[in-house]
Amino acid sequence: MEESSTYPKHNRSTVRRLRDRTVHAIFSAAPIVHVSFLPTDPSVDPFPTILPMLGAIGSFGNPSADPATEPLDFYIHGHASSRLMKLPGSKLTEDHPEGLPVCVAATLVDGIKLALTPFNHSCNYRSAVLHGYANLVTDEDEKNWAMHRITDALVPDRWNNTRVPPSKPELQATSVLRITIVSASAKISTGPAGDDRKELQNDDVTSKVWTGVFPVWEHVGPPVESKTNKVALVPEYLGSWMRERNASREEYAVKVASDKI
Amino acid sequence: MEESSTYPKHNRSTVRRLRDRTVHAIFSAAPIVHVSFLPTDPSVDPFPTILPMLGAIGSFGNPSADPATEPLDFYIHGHASSRLMKLPGSKLTEDHPEGLPVCVAATLVDGIKLALTPFNHSCNYRSAVLHGYANLVTDEDEKNWAMHRITDALVPDRWNNTRVPPSKPELQATSVLRITIVSASAKISTGPAGDDRKELQNDDVTSKVWTGVFPVWEHVGPPVESKTNKVALVPEYLGSWMRERNASREEYAVKVASDKI
Repeated sequence: MEESSTYPKHNRSTVRRLRDRTVHAIFSAAPIVHVSFLPTDPSVDPFPTILPMLGAIGSFGNPSADPATEPLDFYIHGHASSRLMKLPGSKLTEDHPEGLPVCVAATLVDGIKLALTPFNHSCNYRSAVLHGYANLVTDEDEKNWAMHRITDALVPDRWNNTRVPPSKPELQATSVLRITIVSASAKISTGPAGDDRKELQNDDVTSKVWTGVFPVWEHVGPPVESKTNKVALVPEYLGSWMRERNASREEYAVKVASDKI
Repeated sequence: MEESSTYPKHNRSTVRRLRDRTVHAIFSAAPIVHVSFLPTDPSVDPFPTILPMLGAIGSFGNPSADPATEPLDFYIHGHASSRLMKLPGSKLTEDHPEGLPVCVAATLVDGIKLALTPFNHSCNYRSAVLHGYANLVTDEDEKNWAMHRITDALVPDRWNNTRVPPSKPELQATSVLRITIVSASAKISTGPAGDDRKELQNDDVTSKVWTGVFPVWEHVGPPVESKTNKVALVPEYLGSWMRERNASREEYAVKVASDKI
């Protein structure tokens, strides 16, 4: 059982158990991801395409899966009429009965690192990338489950605080793709910028160039109610989510500005 | 001259003059982009790849180009030994003497829109995507110019406040790719979430579900100096950049939380 709980073997380096938790944590922290797919006819149009999407990681068949040891799927949604939602099963998947080959990337920027020389400038970040096969979700329970996950990935507990369950027309107008993950990896950069010893010993340089890190985090501002809103007070689950999210993101960005972890 | 100043015609819809300025503004505001390229041998590994990169838009041959009417290139950089930097001229470009076909996406998240029903939840965002051919920059002047652009895209005026010009070993260790843009487009979402009239007329729903927008912006925190830093005060060009960037991002995110623009 332990062996089958990792992602299937593949010509890429198989994801190590230890890294799965990191990959999953980054995807959980970044509901907005970038999804890439291949051109339909490379002889006419040779370019891959990237779309920003909302998504969520999880396992419908095993919802309490341990993110460190058990495989998860990735779910994205869109209008049923949109290009990407119609690609699984199209010409692009003729050679791939497994589904539409896609790449999904999640990136959190945690800081801007300023070094003595421009070529040593870089960022603190957490980045996760997965490769997998996307297929249309046709089971209504799985679709509702996935939309629940995607909604709560944007704002925790939001699903149960809206008008649910979705109506038939809503379900028909929205498509969900399940991406079966074949491989995944994470890359994390923390700490100050690295400077070459030669530069650090050059007083002319170190006396003039300020070095350090600007911590960076995605900040959520106080909510602005819509003109049609009739709920007088911002509910506590929203306020506490905002405060906790801002505090933990700031804390992480400031910490890794000086500490390599 | 006017005709040749737009991006070349292509089977995708040619970028309209009016939209170029928007595309260029989004790429200028988002130094961290996602770059996608095709698999080298799709029969072995069918997945496209996405990498987060630092980049900058500009024209080396025409540095004062008007972003609304004149074509620009996109530059990215990386270690000379990294996979992406070695792809132009490799097997992947056998069919493409123009260069390596890539897609570059820049996304700024400006808000989280909360609607009455989960399927109407979405984000305020500014997204730009370009398709083009990447080639290695071999001219030393162009390489220095591109690195200057990329460094200042991260933090304005930083290049001239570091130890420049780059040394020969630095230039050798870093590669720069110039992406000749073939097509580009932008998508912008502003204003509150859209709710269906049927839901808005349902008092049971509107009395329970809070609706509105959480403004979101990338916040830059006070700088943390490195242990080796010897410049006592944070220079003014850094402090004013931080304050102005935070103020303008917050102002935009709060504005589009209620106003459709």
